[in-house]
Amino acid sequence: MRMEDSTLRQAYVLGVGMTRFGKHLDRSMKALAAEAIDLALADAALGRDALEAAYVGNAVQGLITGQECVRGQVVLREHGIGGIPIVNVENACASASTALHLAWRAVAGGFEDCVLALGMEKLFHPDKRKVFAAFSGAIDVEILEAFRQMLARGAGEPAPATADGNGGGQRSLFMDVYAAAARHHMEAYGTRREHFAAIAAKNSWHGSLNPRAQYQQARTVEEVLASPVVADPLTRLMCSPIGDGAAAAVVVSPDFLVARSRRAEAAPRPVRIAASVLGSGWDRGAGESGVVAEVARRAYEAAGIGPADVDVAEVHDATAPAELMLYEDLGFCAEGDGKRLVESGATRLGGRRPVNTSGGLIAKGHPVGATGIAQIVELVDQLRGRAGKRQVEGARVALAQNAGGAVRAEPAAIAVHLLTI
Amino acid sequence: MRMEDSTLRQAYVLGVGMTRFGKHLDRSMKALAAEAIDLALADAALGRDALEAAYVGNAVQGLITGQECVRGQVVLREHGIGGIPIVNVENACASASTALHLAWRAVAGGFEDCVLALGMEKLFHPDKRKVFAAFSGAIDVEILEAFRQMLARGAGEPAPATADGNGGGQRSLFMDVYAAAARHHMEAYGTRREHFAAIAAKNSWHGSLNPRAQYQQARTVEEVLASPVVADPLTRLMCSPIGDGAAAAVVVSPDFLVARSRRAEAAPRPVRIAASVLGSGWDRGAGESGVVAEVARRAYEAAGIGPADVDVAEVHDATAPAELMLYEDLGFCAEGDGKRLVESGATRLGGRRPVNTSGGLIAKGHPVGATGIAQIVELVDQLRGRAGKRQVEGARVALAQNAGGAVRAEPAAIAVHLLTI
Repeated sequence: MRMEDSTLRQAYVLGVGMTRFGKHLDRSMKALAAEAIDLALADAALGRDALEAAYVGNAVQGLITGQECVRGQVVLREHGIGGIPIVNVENACASASTALHLAWRAVAGGFEDCVLALGMEKLFHPDKRKVFAAFSGAIDVEILEAFRQMLARGAGEPAPATADGNGGGQRSLFMDVYAAAARHHMEAYGTRREHFAAIAAKNSWHGSLNPRAQYQQARTVEEVLASPVVADPLTRLMCSPIGDGAAAAVVVSPDFLVARSRRAEAAPRPVRIAASVLGSGWDRGAGESGVVAEVARRAYEAAGIGPADVDVAEVHDATAPAELMLYEDLGFCAEGDGKRLVESGATRLGGRRPVNTSGGLIAKGHPVGATGIAQIVELVDQLRGRAGKRQVEGARVALAQNAGGAVRAEPAAIAVHLLTI
Repeated sequence: MRMEDSTLRQAYVLGVGMTRFGKHLDRSMKALAAEAIDLALADAALGRDALEAAYVGNAVQGLITGQECVRGQVVLREHGIGGIPIVNVENACASASTALHLAWRAVAGGFEDCVLALGMEKLFHPDKRKVFAAFSGAIDVEILEAFRQMLARGAGEPAPATADGNGGGQRSLFMDVYAAAARHHMEAYGTRREHFAAIAAKNSWHGSLNPRAQYQQARTVEEVLASPVVADPLTRLMCSPIGDGAAAAVVVSPDFLVARSRRAEAAPRPVRIAASVLGSGWDRGAGESGVVAEVARRAYEAAGIGPADVDVAEVHDATAPAELMLYEDLGFCAEGDGKRLVESGATRLGGRRPVNTSGGLIAKGHPVGATGIAQIVELVDQLRGRAGKRQVEGARVALAQNAGGAVRAEPAAIAVHLLTI
């Protein structure tokens, strides 16, 4: 975007940590955040006093607990971190990747040498109405009803009003958005329910290998198809669940690494942020690519690598059809070829380019404001060769894609990060 | 903070705009934001397509309207701005200055050449409970009750439960915080109610000269003292009111200015951001300065100027006593000497260093998420010599100080900006 040649510095992820995702009604946001921060600092072999700034992503705590403001300061101060610049950022389900983007900018732009990126969310609440009000708050609330009607018209008939994966007889409006997009893809490219189910089954299998995943039960394609319909063609097991959790990353500069190396301190292997690109939706003309493809294109260009170089990816599978469409947007296959990529098994563990080895949003869980950094946690583990049963052998290039909110027909925020080791 | 010599670029405010602050029940956030953006772009002589990114500050819209997420995207897309990185930031009453800080970083760090900083808030709502819940959300909500009790103990007796400036028999907990600090200052330094009242009267006079101010009626010291007590020693006319409004600034790089100059386009005089510093509260030891003084010190150092160089300032007078204490924190006088500075008349229009020529939060109004950039609007007008009846002759150096939220005894966020022309 800028006019002169880049003078940006490199930036590295030096430590990552996250809580197990799940239902944590008995644990406060402070406790969840503290666990993630401590794990990330321990991973980086750093103390809290090394942190020069903090970028904190959260989406909906205001509507859930009433903590509408200074969410980062409240959890950080309780954990002995203060006196530094603290920026609270929100981009719906892409809040944490936006926090990471700001952390990258802080280091790459030369403002700080060691910063914290934190994502956190508590969605479970005894009053489920609060949870669904929070989800509605990620779409223009002035046009919610018109939006519902538009989706229903697009479907030819009203979507069935069944319970979603979280019970309670309600579902997020986003499920209707995803269902409409899935139906469009089926009509345009002959994609079938079985392809979506195969992705959900894959992610449940990956999740069964991940001790931090909310769901650790591998499901078959048949089980996925037989689970209750949320909004045709989505079944409950194709949808990400409600969850609580936190994830953190410590981002540092080359100068920081050099200074540390001079002091001969033990340190883990840094993972380079090869690209960090944020974008937002727009009304594009015919023939123009969508916002995800455009943001991915910019990220590949910034990093000087292409989709073929990616060894492992975490993508925003809020629903299984979304993952299939993301294969196409991210250049892992041609437009309309998502179904063939599923059939090839390339995106399963053991395949050529495993996707969502963590279990993805579907199995690992989706505490929305934590998701973008949880993706980074998995990818750093993969690049460092410590992903255990989920390890992608020889992984050297990783991609994370995170999406948030919706304005009109496009996501409100899209972030793509490329990591290399 | 960083280890190597700075390679940051300069950054300039090229255009500013704001709505009148006030009660805008009939106008949506979209309409208010659009007005501020259009004014800022017109001031910069730029079109919307020049914007490469947007940083949007808002504090409490989630609790007021339910628009908990993607607040920036919702108003920008409606106004024909999308497809660019959009970051929603929140730091309570310092949300807009935090957005400006990120805009400055975007340009100074070399990420973008022309960006928008937007602050916006609608606080008025037919249901006043929503407004007060929103204010409580800027303090750790888990300890609200304990906090109330601590304040009451500090006062020796419970603060009187009178109506605040907005009626309704309720008041923000922040008024108790400010009252406790004011009582402490009175005991420690012999400051009197009359000093606070003189500041409120001054700001009401300044506001009477500002067409964008919520209150445009000049008040006397006697009127201020005679208005209803909110929390001793605060009277209603010493407190900032509830308000709605939006303010915007366009920030550009030197490269952008050079390119424009080559095209021989007409352009307004750029105002340099000489320093932009963000900080947060901390538990400091005896003898250590508070967070405002520390952030101001860093800003003066970054800009290479001192408090004596400041010609005009906008400071966070959420209450009149806060402004008096800020004189001391910002180095406009020695600790404890705030009362003498008030008596000297130096901070009134016509004095040596006028403060809150806009009317400040007390008279101009305080739509919290817009305030930090509204301060910049006033200061840019002053530095460009177009402040009309409020003009500070020959102003070349300006300071803005904005504060937000509270964790324990200190503000959660503090921002200080220094501007020069």
